[in-house]
Amino acid sequence: MKINRPTLIIDEKKARRNIAFMADKAKKLNLIFRPHFKTHQSATVARWFRKIGVKQIAVSSLAMAHYFYKHNWDDIHIAFPYNILECQGLNELAKNIKIKVSIESQEALSHLKSYVKNPIQYMIIIDVGYGRTGIDASNWKSILSLANQGNSTCQFSGLMAHAGHTYDARGLNDIEKTHSSSLSKLETLVEKFVNPPFVSYGDTPSCSVSENFNLISEFRCGNFVYYDVTQTLIGSCTVDQIAVAMACPIVAEHYDRNEVVIYGGAIHFSKDFVMTPYKHFGQIVNFTNNGWKILEDVYLKKISQEHGIIHLPKNIDKNQFSIGHIIGILPVHSCLTADLMMGQQTLSGLPIEKMIRI
Amino acid sequence: MKINRPTLIIDEKKARRNIAFMADKAKKLNLIFRPHFKTHQSATVARWFRKIGVKQIAVSSLAMAHYFYKHNWDDIHIAFPYNILECQGLNELAKNIKIKVSIESQEALSHLKSYVKNPIQYMIIIDVGYGRTGIDASNWKSILSLANQGNSTCQFSGLMAHAGHTYDARGLNDIEKTHSSSLSKLETLVEKFVNPPFVSYGDTPSCSVSENFNLISEFRCGNFVYYDVTQTLIGSCTVDQIAVAMACPIVAEHYDRNEVVIYGGAIHFSKDFVMTPYKHFGQIVNFTNNGWKILEDVYLKKISQEHGIIHLPKNIDKNQFSIGHIIGILPVHSCLTADLMMGQQTLSGLPIEKMIRI
Repeated sequence: MKINRPTLIIDEKKARRNIAFMADKAKKLNLIFRPHFKTHQSATVARWFRKIGVKQIAVSSLAMAHYFYKHNWDDIHIAFPYNILECQGLNELAKNIKIKVSIESQEALSHLKSYVKNPIQYMIIIDVGYGRTGIDASNWKSILSLANQGNSTCQFSGLMAHAGHTYDARGLNDIEKTHSSSLSKLETLVEKFVNPPFVSYGDTPSCSVSENFNLISEFRCGNFVYYDVTQTLIGSCTVDQIAVAMACPIVAEHYDRNEVVIYGGAIHFSKDFVMTPYKHFGQIVNFTNNGWKILEDVYLKKISQEHGIIHLPKNIDKNQFSIGHIIGILPVHSCLTADLMMGQQTLSGLPIEKMIRI
Repeated sequence: MKINRPTLIIDEKKARRNIAFMADKAKKLNLIFRPHFKTHQSATVARWFRKIGVKQIAVSSLAMAHYFYKHNWDDIHIAFPYNILECQGLNELAKNIKIKVSIESQEALSHLKSYVKNPIQYMIIIDVGYGRTGIDASNWKSILSLANQGNSTCQFSGLMAHAGHTYDARGLNDIEKTHSSSLSKLETLVEKFVNPPFVSYGDTPSCSVSENFNLISEFRCGNFVYYDVTQTLIGSCTVDQIAVAMACPIVAEHYDRNEVVIYGGAIHFSKDFVMTPYKHFGQIVNFTNNGWKILEDVYLKKISQEHGIIHLPKNIDKNQFSIGHIIGILPVHSCLTADLMMGQQTLSGLPIEKMIRI
């Protein structure tokens, strides 16, 4: 690898394996697979999905929908509450491709129906316990009212939920517990409909580990494409499934305090951290000929804007941490790190095209 | 303001006032003013500095040095440990403009001298207690050895320190205490030189509040151009001096739990937070005709990738928080927020040119 500044390295084989795993699981469960592309935001990685037959995707902003539209994706769900201030851009996009939007209030739906003139579909966001967005799953009256307002231009196309509180889970039982409680809320709701609605669902922890997707019509998870350190702690994946590592040059040696300093900081990693049990911002790996190898007890201890401080165990061989050496860091939260990094490539050096941030 | 998605708004008047304040202070103390441009990373804002006579700047990466070189800045200090892997790009830049690099080891200096053929200056990074980079101020032997290796191509040009531990301060006394201890370490060091070296110094807290810069030759602070919520807690500035606010659309109302959801999350704010006493990611303001006004007890409580949850006090007028309304958020850490935001404009709507991230 000819790298001289922080660069996101993608292990294409692992990413493709993660993609195949989730696609196969959806198929086995007879679910539509509509992966969320907010994690990679990449036309290159998107092609890996297309290669195995994926045609429907989710994104988290109109800007991201535009990006993938330009890269020939024509069935896109903007899985974020409809932003009425972007109705014009949305209307233009809906002229050209199939668009689903996400609705959670009468006000938003009324606005959508007044301002968007091209055929569009809407899904109702259901809160299954995460408490971020959505109508509470028990609020049948509001949900039914929104569901009944579809027409030929603005068509009701089902319910969507994101059990984001699985991110608080630590271990499979925890994930299953949160997932079951979310599903059971959906179940009670769905039973009230005369015709069972289409249900889109998809946090990475649940989709990775559970086998129980009764009532669910579609997987909408995203992080699984790369996974990350947080997902290993939750129990969604093993560390071997993590498909991204930041490559960062070592710029200063401070062996006296068991530390080295890298070119790589908050503007590359973001500032999400984990406690395992020490607070850290990433797990250190050594790059090998065809991947990377975990270095036990070596972690990214502290970050400021461009600086990162790596903690080294006392009796580790310091030669691999000398100035000019490139080390790898498995990110704590791959969605944020991938979002930040414009410089991305595969292990074999192929460039990864990435959406330009706005 | 015609804004429909997260946009960083810069109060030009306040930013120019902050710039003038620091420039005047440096002048009064008879110091060179070499502002750090890593906070704004903007050719537009850079012109505000040039307007009042600034000609020398600091940056935190070779990429940033290139950006400002292209915008006609010709005296640039890369205030980050010399990354030996970028020697080629550095050498090319040094052919065209005056470049200072930052050195903290024999290995880095030897490399610089072997590989960089165009005249360049180097400063020695001194650790005055922050513990990030630099040679400990008491390590006279190493410091003298590096200082003595200058030649006509690679010229020793002084010491540099960053008392970043002032960021742990809460209040003026705390800042002064950390600052004094840092200065006294430098003092002991400088006294050992036969000819007192040039000393570059500059964390925003110290430069904002202290009057004691004995031995210091140059201010190298950066954050002061915008300040932020963290700096108000440290005691570096008042909330009225904060010159940036994020403008974000409200996309969902959840008054029942005293919350609204904005389009604006970790990819816009980064994930730095403060505890005052509740954990939060930004202080909410209302935009007015010519600026913004603080809303007491309204804060950015939680963020995920694109979503932000705003906490509202129980008896606040909810009308100003309805769907489609744009609210402002004073960032916790303006350096990271400004780094993330490509969409930036002044209060009057003039676009702010920003370095494209790499």
